[in-house]
Amino acid sequence: MNPQAFERAKHVYANEAFVELVKDAVRFFNGTPVHALPPPQRFLGTGVYALYYTGRTGLYKKYGELNRLAYGYPIYVGKAVPKGWRQGRTSDAPGKQSAELFNRLAEHSRNILAVSGVDLGDFMCRFVILEEASSDMIGTIEAALIKVHSPLWNTSLDGFGNHTPGQGRFNQARSDWDVIHPGRTWAAKCLGAPSDRNRLLEKIDRYLEAKS
Amino acid sequence: MNPQAFERAKHVYANEAFVELVKDAVRFFNGTPVHALPPPQRFLGTGVYALYYTGRTGLYKKYGELNRLAYGYPIYVGKAVPKGWRQGRTSDAPGKQSAELFNRLAEHSRNILAVSGVDLGDFMCRFVILEEASSDMIGTIEAALIKVHSPLWNTSLDGFGNHTPGQGRFNQARSDWDVIHPGRTWAAKCLGAPSDRNRLLEKIDRYLEAKS
Repeated sequence: MNPQAFERAKHVYANEAFVELVKDAVRFFNGTPVHALPPPQRFLGTGVYALYYTGRTGLYKKYGELNRLAYGYPIYVGKAVPKGWRQGRTSDAPGKQSAELFNRLAEHSRNILAVSGVDLGDFMCRFVILEEASSDMIGTIEAALIKVHSPLWNTSLDGFGNHTPGQGRFNQARSDWDVIHPGRTWAAKCLGAPSDRNRLLEKIDRYLEAKS
Repeated sequence: MNPQAFERAKHVYANEAFVELVKDAVRFFNGTPVHALPPPQRFLGTGVYALYYTGRTGLYKKYGELNRLAYGYPIYVGKAVPKGWRQGRTSDAPGKQSAELFNRLAEHSRNILAVSGVDLGDFMCRFVILEEASSDMIGTIEAALIKVHSPLWNTSLDGFGNHTPGQGRFNQARSDWDVIHPGRTWAAKCLGAPSDRNRLLEKIDRYLEAKS
């Protein structure tokens, strides 16, 4: 088992079928029913979701205009993976499922309710459930949707998807999202120097002006 | 655009072709040449890698035995994604690539050199380069490899892949990996209460005993 001489080409993997597969999944995603946030009932499963802003006023009214005829412009895209996914201890078999995707959407709803500057009634969501072997597609489909849409809360205004910092991490700054939308209890406890609110507002404006 | 009644089945996506595709990629991975850690020359690209322990003595000698005839038991599996991947600002086009995958392997080499309990010469690596559209597969292939192998440093002994904590995060505890392998400068600065070393050693033994 002597190591071979290095040859880059021997390490490059490409599969045309994969590109088509991702397109098919994104197409399916775009055809799923849109629901209020949170969805009207609890359901089991993991997967990928998008949040759409539909308000006619406020900071994000441009999104409301863009989504008037079809839900084509998510403000945020995220995923809910099986428990222990990073450690290979997956629980994505149908009988062992829990409600990760629904719970994540419910958590987002609570966060939006807790802060100022946005009303929960102005949000809709779309989601695709990926279970068993298909749960391995979650990261790929999330990445593809973020790449296509560059949603504001994934790109220019970061932090919406953050969780309470772990023990001993409160010396960090609160996120840009928390600067614009104060109200999360744990965000107020973050002690680091946050971004300047006016500069963030300008950044949001620039992002939305470029959006069409 | 009134929201539709909720119907779970409308949200479930499955694609048999995907399962076959992941198997094909894992098969390709398992056939790539094995190299010393770090690989003998710098190369461009992002992708997925595995580290194999081949030492005949020490804490992980069981891995050395298992990998004697073929590199089938990684101690760690990881990924190197395009810059800005989470934000949809990917730079995976061949002309704009940088050496994320090589750099990550080099970083791992420096970490292993810096700590006690392991010798860099006892490690080998295998890696697959995934670029352009195929870079979207990185998370999926990493997850599949972790699921198949449950490598020790991804599961029972966490923390090898950690980076220097960000500003204001040094109140957290150093990782379990850093307790077993002291030597990283930033790990020594972490102020939180770490795991008990003897309990971790027992955990490693239990993991390796079950491995075959």
